[in-house]
Amino acid sequence: MNFQEKLDNIVKKNNSLVCVGLDQGELEFNQKIIDQTHDLVCAYKPNFAFYEALGSKGWENLQKTVDYLRAKYPEVITIADAKRADIGNTNNGYVTAIFDELKFDAVTVNPYFGREALQLFLDQKDKGIILLCKTSNPGSGEFQDFVWEKVATNVAKNWNKNNNCLLVVGATYPEELAQIRKIVGEMTLLVPGIGTQGGDVAKTVKAGLNSTKAGMIINSSRGIIFSANSRAEALKLRDEINKYR
Amino acid sequence: MNFQEKLDNIVKKNNSLVCVGLDQGELEFNQKIIDQTHDLVCAYKPNFAFYEALGSKGWENLQKTVDYLRAKYPEVITIADAKRADIGNTNNGYVTAIFDELKFDAVTVNPYFGREALQLFLDQKDKGIILLCKTSNPGSGEFQDFVWEKVATNVAKNWNKNNNCLLVVGATYPEELAQIRKIVGEMTLLVPGIGTQGGDVAKTVKAGLNSTKAGMIINSSRGIIFSANSRAEALKLRDEINKYR
Repeated sequence: MNFQEKLDNIVKKNNSLVCVGLDQGELEFNQKIIDQTHDLVCAYKPNFAFYEALGSKGWENLQKTVDYLRAKYPEVITIADAKRADIGNTNNGYVTAIFDELKFDAVTVNPYFGREALQLFLDQKDKGIILLCKTSNPGSGEFQDFVWEKVATNVAKNWNKNNNCLLVVGATYPEELAQIRKIVGEMTLLVPGIGTQGGDVAKTVKAGLNSTKAGMIINSSRGIIFSANSRAEALKLRDEINKYR
Repeated sequence: MNFQEKLDNIVKKNNSLVCVGLDQGELEFNQKIIDQTHDLVCAYKPNFAFYEALGSKGWENLQKTVDYLRAKYPEVITIADAKRADIGNTNNGYVTAIFDELKFDAVTVNPYFGREALQLFLDQKDKGIILLCKTSNPGSGEFQDFVWEKVATNVAKNWNKNNNCLLVVGATYPEELAQIRKIVGEMTLLVPGIGTQGGDVAKTVKAGLNSTKAGMIINSSRGIIFSANSRAEALKLRDEINKYR
């Protein structure tokens, strides 16, 4: 089963576009969040920065977190939020680490090097390759405003031969989100920036849905994992998103 | 002592602009290369992709490689070739991993998110923050050709308050290298792409030197580390570079 099929299945089964960002590196903490929310989400997204801060122990926790997910909730998508990219063959190391060793379903990739360099990622035809396009941070325009449209266009036209590409578009930029939706057709978008970062759910969902009333993975991290009741927060976000679908 | 002072000292002491890229994750292999070349280089640059491919064991090897360098050859610069970047606070994880845990002198950073997001890197005033500008790969123009000039300009003008910024410019693009040198004044450039990738030493050095006949860290990886005689190759490259200084 390829990435998009697996995603479509879990979106349908859990009636959810919610992704929970696992933005800290402790194994038991993550296991608790996962057990509380697994039937309310379509994906989990550990961000590598928080694991690497703990050194090789963090890398072990990351491995164990993905192993736990694969063993207990194999239908849920796992996204390596690693924002990797390098020249040509060097990417082999990252591909091996993320797909062969850690066994994630998808990875976030920085497009700065261009398609030629990232071909090894794009060749992973059963995996999701999620290219940064317009990121959620306030200063993302400094360089991205000169290229995000090209990133969207080129990825949709020339990078997506295996139908395994997705784009990252911040919920904090609903106008760009709507434009990118027009450029990329049905392609799934990973949308961070809801919650703590200030993205508005109604605007985001309306701007980003594709013709199947899906095509989005909407991430919340701190708002869910550091809440007193993670299950309640995940449920609330899922239902609020579904109001606008 | 800050990064630039440490770099200036070792460039002078070893009369060398050579950086050896440690593009594989085995500890003993790296130790051998380091022992053979430490008095001929200014820097070592482990590329994280090759270590991560080995999982948590690779992360340990990376730690031990930097520890070995710091203990035995503390004057030589260590560069974390990690090409990291994320939004705001997330970069804390990478900063902790690379500078507090692994204790590198410098890191390569992808500029796509813009200055606002990367401030936590830029705040490390004794460390070298090496921003990708025009990378060495054949397809780097796809997006970079619309922004590399802005990256060079903005980094030189607005990002470099702590005088700790460097730029990556590929030896495979000597014309862009010359233009970037004009834009950034005396700033040090990290230049990969010599050797296996086809960059020409004479053109590269002539295009990239600053007014002190230095201001460049010229990397070679495979051409040195996988050679039958790494010391001879490092010596040859050092002397060839010095011919044009």
